[in-house]
Amino acid sequence: MTNKGLLVIFSGPSGTGKGTVLKSYFAHHPEAKLSVSATTRQPRLGEQNGREYYFVTKEKFAEMKSKNALLENAEYCGNCYGTPRAPIESWLKKGYNVFLEIEVQGGAQVRKLLPDSIGIFILPPSVQELGNRLRGRKTESEDAIQKRLNTAKREIQQAAQYDYVVVNDTVEKAAAQVAEIISSEKYKTSRNSALIERVLNND
Amino acid sequence: MTNKGLLVIFSGPSGTGKGTVLKSYFAHHPEAKLSVSATTRQPRLGEQNGREYYFVTKEKFAEMKSKNALLENAEYCGNCYGTPRAPIESWLKKGYNVFLEIEVQGGAQVRKLLPDSIGIFILPPSVQELGNRLRGRKTESEDAIQKRLNTAKREIQQAAQYDYVVVNDTVEKAAAQVAEIISSEKYKTSRNSALIERVLNND
Repeated sequence: MTNKGLLVIFSGPSGTGKGTVLKSYFAHHPEAKLSVSATTRQPRLGEQNGREYYFVTKEKFAEMKSKNALLENAEYCGNCYGTPRAPIESWLKKGYNVFLEIEVQGGAQVRKLLPDSIGIFILPPSVQELGNRLRGRKTESEDAIQKRLNTAKREIQQAAQYDYVVVNDTVEKAAAQVAEIISSEKYKTSRNSALIERVLNND
Repeated sequence: MTNKGLLVIFSGPSGTGKGTVLKSYFAHHPEAKLSVSATTRQPRLGEQNGREYYFVTKEKFAEMKSKNALLENAEYCGNCYGTPRAPIESWLKKGYNVFLEIEVQGGAQVRKLLPDSIGIFILPPSVQELGNRLRGRKTESEDAIQKRLNTAKREIQQAAQYDYVVVNDTVEKAAAQVAEIISSEKYKTSRNSALIERVLNND
């Protein structure tokens, strides 16, 4: 099978546990890397440059954008966010599988640029269960939760743009399903023309 | 994930060990079924009707063909071979994954009819190694083996028509790779529109 790394677009509604599933996956897969976004927003307490985000000035961000150094970018609440291209390309070349935890619009931008990437959409068991989970956190008003659930519904309706859906029923099961997807993608004929040549030529 | 069965087109050059890989896979996967072909050739010693083949008369075979009861058919050495459609459709409906062990031309016929099927091509580690395996059997002349290897090369060049390639390096590893492919295909978004609806509608 191919040794080239895979780029995985990893999306799903807020509260679905994407980050927890990835954490569980990464614990068993040292050949995987998580892309770190660049942002112009201020670091929060405990955040480290290069871990949660690359914290850059507005001027630096604009320069990265103009130099085509970002795979995608967007603005939220007056701050810019973007995905730096260079570390991803370097990791892929070295054979690492690179995960982008990204919202649906950003994911669509990256897939257009890199159609060889794999899209995985994480689903909650149901929208109702997502609501229960959000309420369980006790950090938001019912009104804010309803807004989140409406956004979640709109995002889930975009799931068809992704190659795979994984239900985050239990974290370990979802992480195992992600692992199966990554493994089997490595056997795709379209990624193995070099292997087929080697078999034919006895290399 | 979807509960509908998957149809798997399983091909590869003669001598690659397709049957052995499937046997190992089936030993751990009771949700899988192997399609049995119909043929007009005479049963050989030890062959059972409905196990190795459905043994039918030329008249019966012609009738099946005319009634569109075969997914594909071909003639070798004056005998007719074909894949009965009814058992496959019935198994798929019940949720079984159905495997067709079939040569490249027949596989292409089935894929045209059922584009939802999955194509897996089994490769030897190399053509040279395939030659070594065939010689190890001590059942054929070097001339016959060379002919087989030439056929194998032509078939391997058709592997690009399949979705996945699996190298039969060791049988257990190849069977495990087949299992990963089948699992991950079940998470394909294209097979899960009903699931996405259920998540949205809290069913």
